[in-house]
Amino acid sequence: MNCQIICVGTEILLGDIVNTNAATLSKELASLGINVFYQTVVGDNARRLEKSIKDALVENDILILTGGLGPTADDITKEVCAKVMGVEMETDKKQLDRIREYFSAKGVMMSPTNEKQAKIPKGATVLENDNGTAPGFLLEKDKKIIVCLPGPPREMKPMFENKAKPILEKYSSSRLVSHNVRMIGIGESDMAHRAGDLLGSENPTVAPYAKDGECLLRVTAKADSVEEAEKLCEETLEKIFKKFSKYIYGVDVNGIEYAVVRRLREEKLKVAFAESCTGGLCAKRITDVPGASEVFECGVVSYSNDIKNAVLGVNKHDLDNYGAVSKPVAQQMAQGVRKLSGADIGVGITGIAGPGGDGTDKPVGLCYVAVAYEGGCVCREIKSARKDRDYNRITASSAAFDEIRKTIDIIIKRGDI
Amino acid sequence: MNCQIICVGTEILLGDIVNTNAATLSKELASLGINVFYQTVVGDNARRLEKSIKDALVENDILILTGGLGPTADDITKEVCAKVMGVEMETDKKQLDRIREYFSAKGVMMSPTNEKQAKIPKGATVLENDNGTAPGFLLEKDKKIIVCLPGPPREMKPMFENKAKPILEKYSSSRLVSHNVRMIGIGESDMAHRAGDLLGSENPTVAPYAKDGECLLRVTAKADSVEEAEKLCEETLEKIFKKFSKYIYGVDVNGIEYAVVRRLREEKLKVAFAESCTGGLCAKRITDVPGASEVFECGVVSYSNDIKNAVLGVNKHDLDNYGAVSKPVAQQMAQGVRKLSGADIGVGITGIAGPGGDGTDKPVGLCYVAVAYEGGCVCREIKSARKDRDYNRITASSAAFDEIRKTIDIIIKRGDI
Repeated sequence: MNCQIICVGTEILLGDIVNTNAATLSKELASLGINVFYQTVVGDNARRLEKSIKDALVENDILILTGGLGPTADDITKEVCAKVMGVEMETDKKQLDRIREYFSAKGVMMSPTNEKQAKIPKGATVLENDNGTAPGFLLEKDKKIIVCLPGPPREMKPMFENKAKPILEKYSSSRLVSHNVRMIGIGESDMAHRAGDLLGSENPTVAPYAKDGECLLRVTAKADSVEEAEKLCEETLEKIFKKFSKYIYGVDVNGIEYAVVRRLREEKLKVAFAESCTGGLCAKRITDVPGASEVFECGVVSYSNDIKNAVLGVNKHDLDNYGAVSKPVAQQMAQGVRKLSGADIGVGITGIAGPGGDGTDKPVGLCYVAVAYEGGCVCREIKSARKDRDYNRITASSAAFDEIRKTIDIIIKRGDI
Repeated sequence: MNCQIICVGTEILLGDIVNTNAATLSKELASLGINVFYQTVVGDNARRLEKSIKDALVENDILILTGGLGPTADDITKEVCAKVMGVEMETDKKQLDRIREYFSAKGVMMSPTNEKQAKIPKGATVLENDNGTAPGFLLEKDKKIIVCLPGPPREMKPMFENKAKPILEKYSSSRLVSHNVRMIGIGESDMAHRAGDLLGSENPTVAPYAKDGECLLRVTAKADSVEEAEKLCEETLEKIFKKFSKYIYGVDVNGIEYAVVRRLREEKLKVAFAESCTGGLCAKRITDVPGASEVFECGVVSYSNDIKNAVLGVNKHDLDNYGAVSKPVAQQMAQGVRKLSGADIGVGITGIAGPGGDGTDKPVGLCYVAVAYEGGCVCREIKSARKDRDYNRITASSAAFDEIRKTIDIIIKRGDI
């Protein structure tokens, strides 16, 4: 089966939006063993959209379109698809009601333009939108399949995964299985070097990736069934676990904050954060995880020295002597927030995120991450070579989660609970 | 002038790489007044690449290709371009020397495969690569222009900007200017409905966009010079300001947190956050803005009732009576963090982000945002129809910034400082 992805939206052609939908769908389709040979982006223009769809239907069995399902006049994707496939549009009563409910639930009057969103090509299977107003659809005719999905990734992704994917799976014989072994504390080239000949294997393949100071090895196998593909992955995964055990924080997890929340729950431990340079990013990341309330109760963003002293009890003298970005201050922040919150583990983070310095001779990218627990307080110094504020904040928060991970092991080993 | 962007790389079709090059180039070309009607991605496959280039040449004067300039066998972009344009490949002596130097500078022997990178279509203008080995080129023949650029963004971007753009500018007589009028507190369909015939205008054009509970109108004008284009925008912008003054928080700003930090700085006011459901997202967003330390000193993430009481002084009785997600609790959080921090404005946010409920009959997506200031405390109730945790947290934090914006106006009106 060959599939072409067509993303519709002038805003993509103007460069205002990076086309993440194409990447998301390509990954999903690869996992179904469906080939994607082309991705196309076309604007909200009926003639060019019609041309793109007709051209794509020549070489492909499946077209997946995203975008242009909105309420405004320039949202034309559904209408053009119906025209090319030679079917009429008709209002789906159920969808119209859903859209009405959606607005009344928000206590807002539905604008008349939204009625347009309830129109669907005749004979199409409706793909309901659990995260917005615009329904999608799957239309099969003359051995060709057209799938229309909304543009906003938050609506598109779950609609594809939960509504479209189960239908498309039936059309593909082979299955692709991927596992991401996620690591922290090792660089990509170092990881690739140590992985050695694993990177040369054919089925499964092993590919290295790096992002924001973390890296991962992706193991991918292709077979007739998911079970066979899983079998093919096993041995290679074992080898990777042996080689990199020290750095691996999880397999197929969303991120280190998810792995840490799971560990804290298992061990019935609670954590609290005192953040300076990360400015609430650690708290934000841990509360991204549903159910974080079991392990996280309190975070303090102490951006000024006064607050570090008044709320966390950091010693004024040390703040003056060593400066806010120093090991003693990070440690007192960790101890202070642990005391304030009554958590088992207190984390203190202070650093210079950039782009500018802090007025001292300390370099941008310097950061101290301290972790306090019953009877101990460790502190790690991080030096990033970059002036990139965003990058330095993300890597510092990831380092904090890595330190929590190690601290849990220490506490458990000591039987400290 | 019409231009098509063709990005070459199987890794993009597998979804392993998000195609940021297309967005980067589209933005650049738009500013040059060059139309981009299609973006295409094709794999490292000679037949399909040749077909894509031929198809693109029918409707376009300019093609810009990225990727496939590497040293390996599957890097075929240059060769296929030369074939389609009917010219030979030849080694560029100067480039060969540059590549040799590049490696010797790194103290590495150049592998013979890298010689391939010095080959350029006959008659093409070389675009030197200041950030890697692969040179690009611009080839003009029969009134058609093909530009080839490397795939890695850190090589592609500077090469386009410094080497290709100055040449392409000459081919375009017109210039494009865009302004984004950003709003909050109004839905996209409502905004589009009220904008009415503005959306129909030709030059400037006005287009509606929505994201994460915010929306914007983009005004785009085309003229012979930037100055004329700006003139064309003015009148339309005025009309938009009149119609939507209540909702507009900024023009061409990165986000509402940037607009709020600017306002707070102007008025020399400080803000503090007490966050429950947003779990540090407000603090994270305000500290995303460089220089936030002037207006933000303290944030408290009070995820549990104990912390709401112990750190922020929220009344236990009210927590039990009204529940954590209630107006009185939001207001006491705002007042508590204002007191704790000594800030001019205290913000309290409590709600149910989802996906699960809070064990009461309160709906997922319900959120209270309170803002306390000298002599007053306002509270806004938000109802999101979605169970999407991420979406609800972002929209709640944006609503908080919106309330700060309104509160600053109140304070200033009252001459309260």
